[in-house]
Amino acid sequence: MSERKITLSEKEIPERWYNIVADMPNKPRPPLHPGTKEPISPDMLAPLFPQALIEQEVTTEKWVGIPEEVRDFYSLWRPTPMFRAREFEKALGTNCRIYYKYEGVSPAGSHKPNTAIPQAYYNKQEGTKRITTETGAGQWGSALSFACHHFGLECEVYMVKISFNQKPYRKLLMNTWGAKVFASPSTETEAGRGILAKDPDSPGSLGIAISEAVERAAQRDDTKYALGSVLNHVLMHQTIIGLEAEKQMEIAGDLPDIVIAPFGGGSNFAGLTFPFLRHNLTEGKNIRCIAAEPASCPKLTRGVFRYDFGDTVGMTPLIPMFTLGHNFVPSPIHAGGLRYHGAGAIVSQLLHDKLIEAQSVPQLECFEAGVKFTGSEGILPAPEATHGIAIAAREARAADLAGTPKTILFNLCGHGYLDMAAYQSYFDGKIIDHELSAEEVQALIDQIDTPPVG
Amino acid sequence: MSERKITLSEKEIPERWYNIVADMPNKPRPPLHPGTKEPISPDMLAPLFPQALIEQEVTTEKWVGIPEEVRDFYSLWRPTPMFRAREFEKALGTNCRIYYKYEGVSPAGSHKPNTAIPQAYYNKQEGTKRITTETGAGQWGSALSFACHHFGLECEVYMVKISFNQKPYRKLLMNTWGAKVFASPSTETEAGRGILAKDPDSPGSLGIAISEAVERAAQRDDTKYALGSVLNHVLMHQTIIGLEAEKQMEIAGDLPDIVIAPFGGGSNFAGLTFPFLRHNLTEGKNIRCIAAEPASCPKLTRGVFRYDFGDTVGMTPLIPMFTLGHNFVPSPIHAGGLRYHGAGAIVSQLLHDKLIEAQSVPQLECFEAGVKFTGSEGILPAPEATHGIAIAAREARAADLAGTPKTILFNLCGHGYLDMAAYQSYFDGKIIDHELSAEEVQALIDQIDTPPVG
Repeated sequence: MSERKITLSEKEIPERWYNIVADMPNKPRPPLHPGTKEPISPDMLAPLFPQALIEQEVTTEKWVGIPEEVRDFYSLWRPTPMFRAREFEKALGTNCRIYYKYEGVSPAGSHKPNTAIPQAYYNKQEGTKRITTETGAGQWGSALSFACHHFGLECEVYMVKISFNQKPYRKLLMNTWGAKVFASPSTETEAGRGILAKDPDSPGSLGIAISEAVERAAQRDDTKYALGSVLNHVLMHQTIIGLEAEKQMEIAGDLPDIVIAPFGGGSNFAGLTFPFLRHNLTEGKNIRCIAAEPASCPKLTRGVFRYDFGDTVGMTPLIPMFTLGHNFVPSPIHAGGLRYHGAGAIVSQLLHDKLIEAQSVPQLECFEAGVKFTGSEGILPAPEATHGIAIAAREARAADLAGTPKTILFNLCGHGYLDMAAYQSYFDGKIIDHELSAEEVQALIDQIDTPPVG
Repeated sequence: MSERKITLSEKEIPERWYNIVADMPNKPRPPLHPGTKEPISPDMLAPLFPQALIEQEVTTEKWVGIPEEVRDFYSLWRPTPMFRAREFEKALGTNCRIYYKYEGVSPAGSHKPNTAIPQAYYNKQEGTKRITTETGAGQWGSALSFACHHFGLECEVYMVKISFNQKPYRKLLMNTWGAKVFASPSTETEAGRGILAKDPDSPGSLGIAISEAVERAAQRDDTKYALGSVLNHVLMHQTIIGLEAEKQMEIAGDLPDIVIAPFGGGSNFAGLTFPFLRHNLTEGKNIRCIAAEPASCPKLTRGVFRYDFGDTVGMTPLIPMFTLGHNFVPSPIHAGGLRYHGAGAIVSQLLHDKLIEAQSVPQLECFEAGVKFTGSEGILPAPEATHGIAIAAREARAADLAGTPKTILFNLCGHGYLDMAAYQSYFDGKIIDHELSAEEVQALIDQIDTPPVG
């Protein structure tokens, strides 16, 4: 019998990241200045990011070299394994072949260190002393804390309040790596105090936490800001996932018909799918790439393609994105990492151009798929990761019904051992599906007052 | 630079377990009947264990074949990686080479599935419907729940009450795999009710939980019992760890001078060290094998070699063991998996014959080592695992001081993502070292009324 796990040696850790911008038929539009609404120049990002990352943000080079120090640090857990999900296939009773790339083997438990490490590295190179950031579920905050600790940088994390309260262990993990963690909205910032004045019980959102982290970085010369998704350079760093998976599928002697990943801001999705999508863009292949978003935060399937702020308060540049409006505060679902109002510029352009697909999936369907997965494959998936599993199960069913079994690959982006409270809620019957009504979506869209895309 | 991770392919999963009894100069004495105090015959174990496991318990064959179904199930996560701990070496500033075998990649998060799976498998083969067991920290209970779920067996877990309360996520993980979990002492059993009548606030102990699980298995024909450590067949199943590590050290081109593992009942320790110890016993090699036990439960370093019960109530056979007496209830330290009054027969005989070593280590030293480890290597170790790390750090220091750097290998037996409450206590300054006084130890030993060994 073929091996369940397809592994690579450390020598096979990719030496370059893949930048899909080079292959896109329509390039993403430039971000706009939040005040003037004019396209911003790269140097305007200098207060927030080190020069090397700004260059990566705007480069159109197809391949960008990975520094040796970063590859060495990656080797603590990379290459990550890819699994043939034989037991899950049996549990589903499908004729499809299902594979998953498992990013939960990283010390922080998810794919997030793939970009946290180069971001911390370039900041260190350029003399930064401290990095601020936001975190939803805590995966990104953990990853950046871990990376900063390694490079001797201070780390300040603004954690969405509902996750801060639901996930004390996540906060503690960040503390273990030396980070300071604040519940957002906090009283540390103008942005936070403003939100609290209007709504003292605000559960917080990624958009609010971004406002806080950006404000704290902009105030101090020795401090920069790091984002865990959305931006071009972040998506590019994550392509190491798909580049490894490509080699692993080759070893398995198989090729995916469908590649699936959960969708929050886009980095998880981009990481696995872009290296496969490249074959569509450059060789006319037809691999379906599906973003799996929560039904309660359906920006890709029900939002509009507009310029919008990355944060809630309106401090960041305007980005061309599929969005539900930067004021949208999604219902407090357990997949905190997917509670974000918009999608990154690259992914949005690709969706607009119908080069990728999106599907939304309710929480209950996700947990059901997650419990079936852990009962068969063993690994307990993070709530975010269950979105990819649920869509993989849907696609397998559809292929079986059509009588044309497919090869499906999805990103198991993180483990759920720090998210057991979510499973507790599920077993206690406390998970409620909240789907937005047509009227609610229309009302959200109507209140968007930012410019249309070109 | 050489690779950090030394990995093996699934084809290299060992095909046989190693039974050290074959190579021991003095074989372990037979267990005695709890009533008659006469040596028991294998068939007297039949109410509790399936025939195949009873045969493994008493076999003197050096190698025992691993069934293909078990190897296939192992392949969900085995072979486990071995790491060269380059970052931890740097953090210690040592000239020693340190390696660790990482068992936390299993779905249950520890080495325990290595024996849970064959135990569930043989039970299934012989028609068992339900397995009862005890669990301390919850690692063993999780592992057996996982294994039973796979083979379609029911699973009942008696979980030491203090861990039940400290580790709700562990309980939940067992529930996710379909197990029933009771806080022990419980009202489900005679044994539990008896303890509660005397001490309604009993925090429980492994000894008590064993009494309960054994009682519930003995009562029902379709129900057997499984133990997660101590017994010969359990230790043998775990040798898969050391057999893999042996191949991996060979690939690394290195040979350990010192092999270290945490010590609860002996399975973790035996698993890593016995395959190395075999070279001492059969080829005159001189690899030091060190058991790392908590200072608050020092049966190996301060206990006596006596026949004693495996449980608290006195239902199990009498086993020749290093013990602090079956009534000993260790202080509620966070490494719940190491809170056991005695050591298995094989390990006890080896220690008595000075073929292995033991060291005790206080909790604070363990957490300090654990935090240093996660700060350098990334992985957050289980509190049990920190005992091995602490002793590895001690031995590295000693070797550096002596000017003779050593090659050290230890068992990182599990991750701590479900044990974050313990780290919270540590950071909050609430971890207190409890070392038994000489008088306390003497008092414990004085009250042992079971027979001496031979």
